[in-house]
Amino acid sequence: MILEIAEIYIRPNTQPAFESAIRESVDKYISKAKGFISFELQKSIEDETRYIFLIQWETLEDHTIGFRQSEQFQYHRELISPYFAKDPFVHHFNRRF
Amino acid sequence: MILEIAEIYIRPNTQPAFESAIRESVDKYISKAKGFISFELQKSIEDETRYIFLIQWETLEDHTIGFRQSEQFQYHRELISPYFAKDPFVHHFNRRF
Repeated sequence: MILEIAEIYIRPNTQPAFESAIRESVDKYISKAKGFISFELQKSIEDETRYIFLIQWETLEDHTIGFRQSEQFQYHRELISPYFAKDPFVHHFNRRF
Repeated sequence: MILEIAEIYIRPNTQPAFESAIRESVDKYISKAKGFISFELQKSIEDETRYIFLIQWETLEDHTIGFRQSEQFQYHRELISPYFAKDPFVHHFNRRF
């Protein structure tokens, strides 16, 4: 199991629309992907334009190949990318303890 | 409940010593703090000098006042700051879903 952490900065005053869009994407696309385990949307207290996605996948390739190279990834990005203030920063993590 | 996310970059080739130090700090100091709920150490797959702490607290102030202004925070920082390549970047988050 690996953890994807995506750091997202959105355009000011688009929080409700962005949250609605990512919820729709999780329901329709992300949660349907092979290897998907769980999704959390976390919103920064200090910067109201900053969000973190915490997404657990069975394997790294379930995200980087299975989901990212799918048609569903394009639909996902079409839903949420209009709100981005800059490109997301995405890393994958192994839990050490 | 809030989530503290701390992004840490450490000096190259100090991973085992750093992981040992943060484990000691969690055992001795962080987990003993009022309002502490849970701690995860996550290590980046793409950048072996990058770590994320995911720390759940009952309230924001349990971290920012209760822990950060305590003597235990000084001991915690003495244990792990020798490994830092730069200052940690810390935000607090509310889970949206």
